[in-house]
Order: sequence, then C-alpha cells, then structure tokens
Amino acid sequence: MSGRIRSEAFKSKVMSAVDAAAIVENGWNIGFSGFTGAGYPKVFPPALAERIREAHARGEEFMVSSWTGASTAPEHDGALAEVDGVRFRAPYQSDPVQRAKINDGTTYYSDIHLSHMPNLVAQGFLGDLDLAVIEVTAITEDGELVPSSSIGANRTYIEKAKRIILEVNEWQSEGLFGMHDVYYPIGNLPPHRPPLPITSTGDRIGTPTMKIDLDKVVAIIETDAPDRNTPFKDLDEDSLKIAGYFLDFLAAEVKAGRLPENLNPLQSGVGNIANAVLAGLLEGPFENITSYTEVIQDGMVDLIDSGKLAVASATAFSLSPTAAERMNDNAAHYAKKIVLRPMDVSNNPEAIRRMGVISCNGMIEADIYGNVNSTHVMGSRMQNGIGGSGDFTRNAFFSCFVSPSTAKGGAISAIVPMVNHVDHTEHDVSVIVTEQGLADLRGLAPRQRAEKIIENCAHPDYREPLREYVKLAHTKANGMHTPHDLRTALGWHVRFLETGTMKE
Amino acid sequence: MSGRIRSEAFKSKVMSAVDAAAIVENGWNIGFSGFTGAGYPKVFPPALAERIREAHARGEEFMVSSWTGASTAPEHDGALAEVDGVRFRAPYQSDPVQRAKINDGTTYYSDIHLSHMPNLVAQGFLGDLDLAVIEVTAITEDGELVPSSSIGANRTYIEKAKRIILEVNEWQSEGLFGMHDVYYPIGNLPPHRPPLPITSTGDRIGTPTMKIDLDKVVAIIETDAPDRNTPFKDLDEDSLKIAGYFLDFLAAEVKAGRLPENLNPLQSGVGNIANAVLAGLLEGPFENITSYTEVIQDGMVDLIDSGKLAVASATAFSLSPTAAERMNDNAAHYAKKIVLRPMDVSNNPEAIRRMGVISCNGMIEADIYGNVNSTHVMGSRMQNGIGGSGDFTRNAFFSCFVSPSTAKGGAISAIVPMVNHVDHTEHDVSVIVTEQGLADLRGLAPRQRAEKIIENCAHPDYREPLREYVKLAHTKANGMHTPHDLRTALGWHVRFLETGTMKE
Repeated sequence: MSGRIRSEAFKSKVMSAVDAAAIVENGWNIGFSGFTGAGYPKVFPPALAERIREAHARGEEFMVSSWTGASTAPEHDGALAEVDGVRFRAPYQSDPVQRAKINDGTTYYSDIHLSHMPNLVAQGFLGDLDLAVIEVTAITEDGELVPSSSIGANRTYIEKAKRIILEVNEWQSEGLFGMHDVYYPIGNLPPHRPPLPITSTGDRIGTPTMKIDLDKVVAIIETDAPDRNTPFKDLDEDSLKIAGYFLDFLAAEVKAGRLPENLNPLQSGVGNIANAVLAGLLEGPFENITSYTEVIQDGMVDLIDSGKLAVASATAFSLSPTAAERMNDNAAHYAKKIVLRPMDVSNNPEAIRRMGVISCNGMIEADIYGNVNSTHVMGSRMQNGIGGSGDFTRNAFFSCFVSPSTAKGGAISAIVPMVNHVDHTEHDVSVIVTEQGLADLRGLAPRQRAEKIIENCAHPDYREPLREYVKLAHTKANGMHTPHDLRTALGWHVRFLETGTMKE
Repeated sequence: MSGRIRSEAFKSKVMSAVDAAAIVENGWNIGFSGFTGAGYPKVFPPALAERIREAHARGEEFMVSSWTGASTAPEHDGALAEVDGVRFRAPYQSDPVQRAKINDGTTYYSDIHLSHMPNLVAQGFLGDLDLAVIEVTAITEDGELVPSSSIGANRTYIEKAKRIILEVNEWQSEGLFGMHDVYYPIGNLPPHRPPLPITSTGDRIGTPTMKIDLDKVVAIIETDAPDRNTPFKDLDEDSLKIAGYFLDFLAAEVKAGRLPENLNPLQSGVGNIANAVLAGLLEGPFENITSYTEVIQDGMVDLIDSGKLAVASATAFSLSPTAAERMNDNAAHYAKKIVLRPMDVSNNPEAIRRMGVISCNGMIEADIYGNVNSTHVMGSRMQNGIGGSGDFTRNAFFSCFVSPSTAKGGAISAIVPMVNHVDHTEHDVSVIVTEQGLADLRGLAPRQRAEKIIENCAHPDYREPLREYVKLAHTKANGMHTPHDLRTALGWHVRFLETGTMKE
C-alpha cells in the first residue's frame, strides 16, 4: 500500500478496480469526481467500461448515468462513452467520444449551470445517487479525505450517495493539504442555508478535508496516475489582439474611476484567449490582482510567481504537464495563494455579485443584438456545454465574451444575424471582443448594439453582409425594437450546412 | 400644505409641477420612482411632457432618458412617450403608448434584469443621473422620507442623483409607515458589500425611511392622486386550469418529500394566472405559506386575511382599486405581515437561492426544448420586458412558466419549434404549464423535454404539427442533441406574419 491511507478502518476496503466495478448495476446513477481534466478517477471508469463492454457482448443491457463536476478525460468520459455505457450525462463534458455519443443520440445530455448541479442533486431532482466515485490525495488518520486537484461536486456526491468508491492517487501531491476549503452549509436545503460568508477572494470559511461516512465506502482503489494535463499552446496573434483590447478596456475603466487600480476579482474561461489575457496581465500595469474563478491555469501560476496575483480562488486546476509538475513540487507554497472550493462556492452567485467579479468567457458566436451562443454548432450539435459561464456572466460586475471573428478558415462568422442557440441572453452581455475590436454594450438598446458589434467586432468579410441584413430587417420587421427578418435570420447557418460556408 | 411635510427645512422648497418641470434640460437622465403602477410621480411627468410638447412646437430638441423601478402609468410613461419625449427607457415598461414608441424606433429601450438596474446605475454604466423624481408618503420631522406604495430603485436614485424632486402624495396612507425596510449596504460598490442578512422572508434588516441630502432637493410638489390600480378580472377557465396543475404539482412535491408542508417561499408574476394560483392557495391545503416576490397582489391580501399567508416580501403593490382602498384603510395592520424592500433586495439572487424560492412567471411562448420568450412578439416587437423574471428563475428552487397554450383565438401557439427570442434559456426552466397540462423538465435532456412539452402542454391543434417538426428535424439536423431544421425552425412565426395564423 502507498501509505496514503492512514486510517486503519479504511485499509480493509482496498481492492482492484475490476472488483470495484463489479459492484455496479445497470441503470445506476453515478457521481464522479473530476473537473476540467483534474481530479477524476483514473482506473475505475476504464474497469467499468470493460464490464459494460462484456455485458453488451453477452447481449445484456448496461448503461449508467454519469454526473461529474465538469469535463474529465479520455480514460473516464471517453472510455465509458466508447462502449455506449452512458445513458445520461450532466452537467458538462468536452471529451470527443462522449460528445459524438451525445450528438448521435446515444447519450441524453442535460447541460446544467455548474452552480446549480449540487443543488439539483441535493434537492432530489435528478433521482437517487447510487454510487459516488471520488479521487482523493489521501485518507487521514481520522478518516477524513484530502481532496486532490479538483473539488467540483465531491462534497455533495459524498453526502448524497448510497455507496462510495475512493481512488487514492499517489500522483497527487501531499502538499495540496491545506489548499482546499470545503464549506458545508451551502449544501443545506432551504430554509437552513446561511449567508455565504465570503467577502474577499481568499477568505477561508471551511475545512481542508472532506468528511465521509465509512459505512458507505464499498471499495478503495490505489492509483498513481497523472491528471489529463494539456500542453500549453503558443499564443496566436488573434488571441493576443483580443487580450490586448480586453486589457485596454480594463485600463480605461480604471481611468474613468469605474474600477479600482487593482481591478475587481477576475474570472476567466480556459483556452488560448484566457492564456493571452493572463500573459498580458503579467506585462501590464495592474498590481495586487485577485481571481475568483473556476480553474487555475498556467498563466495564474506565473502571475502568482511574479507577485502580481495576490490570491486565486477556484474549484480545480487546468494546467499543462509542466505547470502541473511545478504545482506538485511546490503545492504547499502555492497553498498560501490558492484556495480550491466546492463548485457551488467557486461559482456562487452571492460571492460573484457581492465581490463584483469581472467575467471573461469564450463563445461560439454572438448575434448583432448581443445574444451569445456558447454551446451549439449550427442549431443541433452540442459542443461542450455552458459550464460555469452563466453563473459568472449573470452576476458579474460586467461580463465579457471573446472569440476570433471567424472560424473554419473564414467560412464561419462568429458574428451572425441571429445566434442558432442562446445561452447568454441580451440582458446579460456587457462586452464582446474579437481580434477586430471591442464592443461596449452597456446601457445600449438592441439597434445601438447592432451597430457597435458589426462595426467593432465582425470580420471585414462579413461586415457588409451584416449591414445588409440590418437594412433588410428594418424593412421587413414587425417592430423596430429588435428588427429581424425571421425568414432569413438563420440563413447564414442554413447556407453553411448546405454549402460549407456562411459566405454567399 | 398637506401636513405631510413635517421638516421645516423642506417646506420652503414646495412649488408647482410646472415650475419644477422648468428645471429639466434636454438630454437629462432622470430616475423616476414607480413600480407596476404603484408609487410613480403623478403630476411632474405630465408637466414635463407639456414642456417638451411646447419645445417641440418651437422646433427645439427635447428628449430625456427615463429610468424607473418598473412599469408606471399613462400619466407618467404614457404622457412622456405621447410627446416623443423619451429617447431612452429602462429597465421595464408596459404602457401602450411607450411600447408603441419603442416599436416605431422613437425610444431606445434597454431591457434590464430588475436586480441589475440599481447596480448598473451605481457603477456608473448608464451615465450620470441628472435628476431623481420620487413619490413619497411623507417627510418626517428629521427630514427623512416615508416611501409610498413602491420602493423600486428609489434608494439608488436618491443616492446617485445630482438633483432631487419629491412628490408628497397625500393619497398614500400614513399607515404605510413601518411597512418598508430600506437596506443600504446592498448599494455599496464592491469590495464594500457585506452578505445580505436575509434568511427568512419576513426578516427586517433596514430602516422604515429613506435618507436624503436636503441640498440636492430642488423642488417638492404636493399631490393627492391614486395609483394606477387596475380592476380585478374574473378568473377565466384556462387560468383556473393552469393554477390547478401548478398547485397539484406543489402538492406532489410535498408528498415526495422534496418540499416542506408549508412549501418554500413563493414568487409569482402578475396577471390572471397568478391571481388564479393565489385563489387556489386560498382553497388549498397549504398553511403558513410565505411569499418572497416583487409585487403584492389582491390574492395575497386575501391570503393574509385568511391566515394562510404568514408573511409577504415585495417591492411594490399591484392592487385593484378595491384592494388598494382596503390596504390604505388598514395599512398599519398589514405592515405586520408585509415587507416592502428596494428592488435589489426583493429580487436579490442571494436571498432567492438561499431561501429556495419557487418561481412562477408568465411567458409569451416556449419552444419544444424548454427555451422561454417573455418579451418579444414575432422576433422584433417588444411587449413589456423581462422584469424580474430572470432574477427569480435563475436562482429558484425550481422555476415554472405558465401560459394558455394558444393566443389570438388559436392563431398563435404558445408552444413552438423555436422561440423567436430567448429570455430564459433551456438551462433555467424547470416546469412549463398550460391549460393542457404540466411538463416537468427537471433533469431531462432536450429530446426528452420536447416529448413532454408537446404531449403535455401544446394545444391539440398544434400537437401533430409539432410532432411533424420533430420528425423533420431528426432527419435534417446536424446533431441529435437539440435536433432542429434551421430552414423551418422559425417558420411558424413567418407564417403568422404572412397569413395571420401559425396554422398551415
């Protein structure tokens, strides 16, 4: 044994992943740990997938409902989806195989705001939770759990599951102890839920470990396997331009007296543009920044090292292999500057609105009136899911959405007459940024927004077609508040589906 | 003088509405009191409208930006819109003349979540507030303001305005003193905003009066005029059926152990269906109910009288003339059971999520995948606005939307393949109810929702066409997550615009 299981009572429950997977029955609801490729169980899902494959080969029905924190990894989401083992999936995913199974109709996917998921489970709206499968760093002498590289919905799943399987992963650094802040009262059902006592990004309000009922533990598996950590991409020109416009906007807001010099706490989605923003902050004028966000990315670790980022709050890591190694080697050091929280605290509307968090998230497309699509491709296909973008956007001091102005070599415009699916309504979107520029939509009515978005954000190839759509809509619409020609509003998407490009 | 102005220092500022209106300059941003026909200024807006009319007759430019709590009345919104006096309007309106001016392009309307409006003003995102015009019941000896029948955004407008005009309305009952609970710290800018200390509907956390800086008061007008109180309509059959399904659903949730016997705090929109729900509660089994909502309606007063409603929290009244009279005659009595709060407290996400409020709001249409349109008619025309429905829906324990299944004598289906505008996304909608039945969407994926909504909620005349759309979408879609045929998804709306009916 690894020495990570320090409670005698737990030691007797150690078994192989294959034996643990044998416990599962067809139709179970399973709550897995895992958030953005961090802290998911590494060996149980493949073992369960193998069991499902064999059952299917014998002609038996075997599918499960898979609930997580957010996205996981090929050996988790991918493995279970590959064998057609997932009947239902929530609340967020990004694995290519799982995505394909959602889009071919095999898996029912319910795309849920991340801050809602623990509530829905606790309220009993998703049914009984038959099993929780949770990765941890260690089990203490007192029989408590040291979380690993994400917390996500683990607190809720451990509390609500009938049975629990633990994966104790030796790859996760022991230095993580003390970085986590597990707050329990947020999980109380109304009317027993007190105000969330966070008024500053770094506030610690809970405990470093998670409680667990030993009687519910049906198996413990020992592992030594890395998280799915994706190598860092070089920053591309478009991302740098977008980050530049965004950071200039922040500087202008400070100058206008609408933001303090150290800004408000920042939230940012993951990906190239977010990394470019973080890189820009490293060079930029802002000191003593804080971040109240979902995931800790490479750039934040650099910002902490530089002294510019005073403290960061999140629910998970999303690091490159290099940065993950750096984190593991120095976790105890970073634990002074990083707080990992349950996702109903990291994404909590109370904290976000109270502290005036500035949100910045990627999008698939925006329309000329400021509605944003974060999830769907051409109306019907699911990409990843809304994740926590709604939690932050709706409650932000102001909310930003960023994207290159085109995709697929110019065949797709990210600015369209009408989005093919709405995840963030016109009521929620403050600022849109592309490599073409920034549209500040605050206080504008729809027709005013259209002008700003088209002239500042659309790619030059699509600017004139968008102006023409507006002109047409003004003649065809049944009202001038949000002028649309419903006959052609989705015509760009239809053209892409028929011809492979939105261009005429 | 009326005796309602009890501070000597204020008395010298009394003048006529005409003199007060002469203070205003072209282009000013004006923050008015007023929420759902209650507590708006009664004589200043018509006087300002007359001044604008005369200026226009002389060929001079004269328009203002009009910010309020929510909707007002013909002598306010209507009068200013009638003379083309409103360049910009936020955050909610329902006056027919103002609506017409929004839809003919005269007025730019920014449709804003009510809980956001005070924040946006305080953060400086809507520009300087040149003037606040606020109705009050009285001015105390100490120079504080007793609010009238609504609070809305008054606290913010009084704090942020460069100048203030007060209307002291003798029609408003002195018994209202003590009903209001004005909480100031929610108006602090981050990082100086503490947790909102409300854990129970009736919690009083503020003061019964509003503070004001005497130096900013440029005019006081004395009035004696009733609110716009709309007569109560007899409950129609469809509303009673919808209320019945909704109340049966609540009872089933109690039985399943997912709600306590006195339910969670209830929020409800205004109108016939809301009144039918309240009437149903009067007959129903639930005792010791509470309501955390936006407006106090007739049915709530009845519920208080019956002893079934223990306490109600809101930001305004929306009463029939009869009920308003009853309220005015017995305000001191009702003040023990009713709390009127600023709208950034009545609609606060913290309080709503923490207490597990059950939301129930009207809609214009829903689509088969659970997206809801609350604001737009056939894509382009604004009806009223989103109001507080988003504040409650997003943070509710579960959220309901209600509507008759058809409108315009059957020519319009409230269940459509794709909504023409999205105000509440698929991620936010738990339950849809029409007179045909109820669709419980909790935990369902889009294809599953479509089946429930079509079979349970759509009108029989539209059920088969909806099934046919689904069948077509399944063959045409580029993915099976949310199958759409983008060529025909908005076809029902197009057909209505071309032929006057959604029917083929």
